[in-house]
Amino acid sequence: MIIQPLLNIAEICARKGLTQVVLSPGSRCAHLVLAFVRHPQIKTYTITDERSAAFVAMGLAQQSKSPVALVCTSGSAALNYAPAIAEAYYQQVPLVVLTADRPPEWIDQLDGQTIRQQNIYGRHIKASFQLPVDFSHPDAVWHVERQVNEAINLAVGDTQAPVHVNIPIREPFYPTTEEQVSYDRVKVIEVIKSEATLDKPTWNQLLDQWDAIENKLIVAGQHVYDAELLKALNHLQEDYNVPIVGDVISNSQSLSRSIKYHDTFLGQQTAHLHSSFCPELLITYGQSLISKSLKLLLRKYRPRYHWHIGTEVQVADTFQALTHHIPVKPTYFFNQLFSDLDFKNMLDGEQDEDNPFSNLWQTHNQQAGRYVARFPFAEHEFSEFEAIQETMRLIPENSLLHLANSMAVRYANFVGLEKPGASTHPGAEVFANRGTSGIDGSVSTAVGTALAAPDRLVTLITGDLAFFYDRNGLWNNYLPSNLRVLLMNNHAGGIFRIINGPKDQPELEEYFETQQPLNAENTARDFHLDYHLVQDRQTLQTQLSTFFEPSECPKILEVETNSVTNAAVLKQFREGYG
Amino acid sequence: MIIQPLLNIAEICARKGLTQVVLSPGSRCAHLVLAFVRHPQIKTYTITDERSAAFVAMGLAQQSKSPVALVCTSGSAALNYAPAIAEAYYQQVPLVVLTADRPPEWIDQLDGQTIRQQNIYGRHIKASFQLPVDFSHPDAVWHVERQVNEAINLAVGDTQAPVHVNIPIREPFYPTTEEQVSYDRVKVIEVIKSEATLDKPTWNQLLDQWDAIENKLIVAGQHVYDAELLKALNHLQEDYNVPIVGDVISNSQSLSRSIKYHDTFLGQQTAHLHSSFCPELLITYGQSLISKSLKLLLRKYRPRYHWHIGTEVQVADTFQALTHHIPVKPTYFFNQLFSDLDFKNMLDGEQDEDNPFSNLWQTHNQQAGRYVARFPFAEHEFSEFEAIQETMRLIPENSLLHLANSMAVRYANFVGLEKPGASTHPGAEVFANRGTSGIDGSVSTAVGTALAAPDRLVTLITGDLAFFYDRNGLWNNYLPSNLRVLLMNNHAGGIFRIINGPKDQPELEEYFETQQPLNAENTARDFHLDYHLVQDRQTLQTQLSTFFEPSECPKILEVETNSVTNAAVLKQFREGYG
Repeated sequence: MIIQPLLNIAEICARKGLTQVVLSPGSRCAHLVLAFVRHPQIKTYTITDERSAAFVAMGLAQQSKSPVALVCTSGSAALNYAPAIAEAYYQQVPLVVLTADRPPEWIDQLDGQTIRQQNIYGRHIKASFQLPVDFSHPDAVWHVERQVNEAINLAVGDTQAPVHVNIPIREPFYPTTEEQVSYDRVKVIEVIKSEATLDKPTWNQLLDQWDAIENKLIVAGQHVYDAELLKALNHLQEDYNVPIVGDVISNSQSLSRSIKYHDTFLGQQTAHLHSSFCPELLITYGQSLISKSLKLLLRKYRPRYHWHIGTEVQVADTFQALTHHIPVKPTYFFNQLFSDLDFKNMLDGEQDEDNPFSNLWQTHNQQAGRYVARFPFAEHEFSEFEAIQETMRLIPENSLLHLANSMAVRYANFVGLEKPGASTHPGAEVFANRGTSGIDGSVSTAVGTALAAPDRLVTLITGDLAFFYDRNGLWNNYLPSNLRVLLMNNHAGGIFRIINGPKDQPELEEYFETQQPLNAENTARDFHLDYHLVQDRQTLQTQLSTFFEPSECPKILEVETNSVTNAAVLKQFREGYG
Repeated sequence: MIIQPLLNIAEICARKGLTQVVLSPGSRCAHLVLAFVRHPQIKTYTITDERSAAFVAMGLAQQSKSPVALVCTSGSAALNYAPAIAEAYYQQVPLVVLTADRPPEWIDQLDGQTIRQQNIYGRHIKASFQLPVDFSHPDAVWHVERQVNEAINLAVGDTQAPVHVNIPIREPFYPTTEEQVSYDRVKVIEVIKSEATLDKPTWNQLLDQWDAIENKLIVAGQHVYDAELLKALNHLQEDYNVPIVGDVISNSQSLSRSIKYHDTFLGQQTAHLHSSFCPELLITYGQSLISKSLKLLLRKYRPRYHWHIGTEVQVADTFQALTHHIPVKPTYFFNQLFSDLDFKNMLDGEQDEDNPFSNLWQTHNQQAGRYVARFPFAEHEFSEFEAIQETMRLIPENSLLHLANSMAVRYANFVGLEKPGASTHPGAEVFANRGTSGIDGSVSTAVGTALAAPDRLVTLITGDLAFFYDRNGLWNNYLPSNLRVLLMNNHAGGIFRIINGPKDQPELEEYFETQQPLNAENTARDFHLDYHLVQDRQTLQTQLSTFFEPSECPKILEVETNSVTNAAVLKQFREGYG
């Protein structure tokens, strides 16, 4: 029997531009599955492992820049979504999580697949809704439509986020063969777009502060590629000589003079210089930073002023130095700042001159860039650092790069995405699950990204633990051929041999590295991926020469290295600088 | 630097008999990892995928009948525990979940692996504790010891359950090489064992009601094997002619006349008889039921009285007929009932005579048992039903059987564990994750069971979706050779072709069955399991003849069948009865 108000949820989603849904199988959710599958404007995927399904949905939402719905049956299915939902919450990705549930009276009555689903995502969800189970009163129908509208509106609001709609459903779960699906005219509540702005007196105060301060630094946190924002930043950098520091996940690599080798030159060998790197005014935007050296620097020598630009409801004080939260969008802020500065300087008749603070950052960045580019890997045993550098050099323009957590994202941040010394190019867009920085979910997220961008190459660089942890990301019937996986297999959590502390413990190999014997060859067979194993630099070069070429199947290049060698090479790299 | 109060947590655990810990790697949890690994009385395992680690811990706890601790690092690791924690909550398995956390001041400051961990398990945990982060005040040290004691005491209380201790930890995370680990004398709070009892007047009231009613039925929910309980029940059944109905997960199969073929004889073909199967007094104990036919019967023809026996805090009204919750242990209740009845009958000089209600159940059970034993599988194509029946016949005595959710546990309930017609034997003990009835976690749970019982054979019967969903259950360095996996691979969620509703939808294959192409051969290669593929009944017989023999490696027997055939055979089976 069709339950029309549930069927209409798909229509509300479509009308509001939510047109991609990741389903997981179940009977309790059959009404929702059929509503979405049969809706002509909605594209559906079905993925059995809900942990993976939710990360795939996140990749889809992130890449298509629109909300994606998830549908699962009742019970622990909803809990398997939780890791991806927390990641989406902190990374601000819009997901609309629709969980089928038993009707309230059957909770805790020992029926199967029945848990306590209301508010199940605790504090990692922007909002939670509970739909009614009876629709006899007309207000109940309005209640469904009103709540689904509100859920989508909140998901795509200024701070994008996952939202949860829990949907108790009574049997029967399926329409009869005679019943025809047709969607009603539904209630649609639109949210008119507004933008937070600053008034003139506020701007003047900020400009006065800006002008009064010599040493200014902009630090970009994780951020999607945004051409308009980068244009404004480039102007500040070029005409006002403000250094802009950006990790590889800040997608600021196309700025001609962005500081990107800070992880190298802020390392231990230059610690005596640190205080001079600290600005008096720090301006940040975006989300998290990879570079621990940068964080430690700014926490130690705290800037006098720290302005954070962004509309997030709750702001982080990452460097324990925050003085002003400026709750507007970075693009608005930097565009406006730049035009006001230009106007002011036109009146004052001056441009910022040569600036020793900026020069310090630029000089070190150039030196570190040369160091990275010329590091004599050939004098060392083959290592994962070398393999990642070689791969990063060749990442095609206009492609997408997903960096898994733990060492992959850290190495990539040493290397930087741009070809050192070469001219600026837009390069690849970089993604990483730095919301929670878990090793879960990177394969699935990359698969979602690849599904959303079939015309672009998507490269995942991952270590072995992250890869096998989320192997089920490959377990679906949609694996796209534009996916490339560079698997750095050192048969362990190699990070534990690199950071201080665990490497001195007798428990290193078993309990920290957690050595594991798997290679990906069988996985590649299971999921029909092109597979090649690389154990030396010559083979790597050979394989990389064709790795990014179009292919019928997705590809996996497994680079097998030794974690002892890896740690030694990275140590040489770090200690050799400066 | 050693943080002594954290180190001492391991000592408290050991002193309180918690001696098995499943660790997952991380730096934030290093103090806890080292505390447990270095403790001479504690056995540790390290498992990378936390979802799997938690289910392994559950299997260990369930089988060893003592609490098991889990240790993970901060961030999404804790969320990956959630499915197993919900299962343990509903299945009443004692887990002590120790999650390392950032110190409170760094939550939401954009540091890596930082989420909101306090109360993260919501309503699926018996209790949640938050340890202090500073230990300068002596009360803080007492606070740690007091809370860890309380956590363990609650986990192993009358209603066993998971508990959560969230542990914020500041750097440094590792002891120096000079530091020696030694455990302090710790505070230990013991809980003296008490037992809920009923007083004489209460017993007399219950006995009066018992005596006044002719048609009595005992229904056993999911329960561990308990020889003392079964002895009392056997007496009731033999001397007082009370039929006892038990699904395969009730572990009541060693009762000489237990009703176990009810799923067959309560099927649709005997619907006209249903009202006569309903007792006037229903007595239940244990947890969930598999048999939907039994549930529907008792919900439709509600017993006048329903007594539920058990110390659970919150009681389920599974049949909408509950009249009395008797909060004592089933063993106490049935032992006492039996001795009181004996005494009463000695005085009255009477025993229960031939009882038509009991005869009805017994007659149908015998008839159904014969039907099951003699069902002419040879006249049908080879199916998973046949394979499960053949395997169940051969399950060794004194072994352990884990039934995965969805079809595996349902088929097993049709078949029953005992050899039909053969004499009573203790048989195997049966486990299934029927707390939440998810398809997640069955492989991991079976691995935990096998680790806890190295001298017994552990057989997992699973479908392909449940198997591949939880393939990471095999991804650890402890895979025990006493594990046997019977994988019924129909390349889909075959249940959707069997239940009414989805089989009539055009979306059946893609969205309900979720057809998937994997075989387990590559998985077996990855994890060094003996592997054999079976596609017909002759090969099955050959393989089964050695499947349960001891071996160096765990074994997997993959039975590949067709879901169309499977559905047809099950339909024949159901419709052919009566």
